[in-house]
Amino acid sequence: MPRKVDHQARRTLIADALMRVAAERGLEAVSFRHVAAEAGVSTGMVQHYFGNKDEVMAFALDVVRERGEARVTAAVERLGQDPPPRLLLRTIIAALLPLNDQTRADGRMALAFLAYTAVRPQLAPALRDDTAQMVGFIAGLLPGPDAGTAAAGLLALMEGLGVYLLGGQYTAEQALAVLDDQLDRLFARSG
Amino acid sequence: MPRKVDHQARRTLIADALMRVAAERGLEAVSFRHVAAEAGVSTGMVQHYFGNKDEVMAFALDVVRERGEARVTAAVERLGQDPPPRLLLRTIIAALLPLNDQTRADGRMALAFLAYTAVRPQLAPALRDDTAQMVGFIAGLLPGPDAGTAAAGLLALMEGLGVYLLGGQYTAEQALAVLDDQLDRLFARSG
Repeated sequence: MPRKVDHQARRTLIADALMRVAAERGLEAVSFRHVAAEAGVSTGMVQHYFGNKDEVMAFALDVVRERGEARVTAAVERLGQDPPPRLLLRTIIAALLPLNDQTRADGRMALAFLAYTAVRPQLAPALRDDTAQMVGFIAGLLPGPDAGTAAAGLLALMEGLGVYLLGGQYTAEQALAVLDDQLDRLFARSG
Repeated sequence: MPRKVDHQARRTLIADALMRVAAERGLEAVSFRHVAAEAGVSTGMVQHYFGNKDEVMAFALDVVRERGEARVTAAVERLGQDPPPRLLLRTIIAALLPLNDQTRADGRMALAFLAYTAVRPQLAPALRDDTAQMVGFIAGLLPGPDAGTAAAGLLALMEGLGVYLLGGQYTAEQALAVLDDQLDRLFARSG
């Protein structure tokens, strides 16, 4: 009887190794050789499952995005039914900011993907759809006539806070103070 | 008579090659071999002038930073004597945003440096000093009792706009609309 290969399990094994290596060395510096060594498989097998570097980067971003969505969902569920828009926004953004070790590791990978994509425009459309969707969602929660622009600003503020948290320019306390200050300003119009 | 080596000229030659390769391939992907090929010198010579990858990254960031400062100085000089704080801030931030091809190339390098630094905390202190200085400067121009937090927010907003301009999520027009909207909000307090 031929040995049956569990492709899903093998892919998961390699993917987990990839994320560990990326968290340690930086996503951009990850090579098939590093991932193979970490997973205990051959370089050829990593190549078989991931094809090329673009696919590795896109895969890692998907993992990071899914973890972010899971964190947001869990945080929003803890708020209970119909939370006020300001609290909902604050909760979502805080869940996405790199405020602890796990979210910092994810944030570093997202940043590496952004830097990688900035010189490879063919990968950018996926980012654009995500951002547009997020701006639309935030705009629906903000008061005022020009909620679209305000939402685009709040999302950019979140992105910048993420960058400065990862670089150590802002502490978690400072970043949350900036977020609250901005939410005060955005919701002052309606109050 | 021994041939005299012009070290400054040679370093400039290699540095220019480095910046060209970085603009095309992405700073993170730059190797001594690429730079040597572009400059038409040996890999050993590039190593002699740049030592290691950290130094290459720090050097590229210095070049990008100096170009940014030169753009800001030129833009502020065009405003004439004693421009109003809002116009001064808008001019400085617009000069630093990646709104055209040259500033986009610089922005991509800054982003690559941030991603690189996020996994190498030993390089971060330089970034922290820059950011703290900038927050202090902006705070001095903003009205209101909590200008420090508002300034930290405006700088984070600028950083996020830069990331989204480089990724193509926001157009130049959208980014400037967001900036103006935020400045309206920040200066509304005093008006």
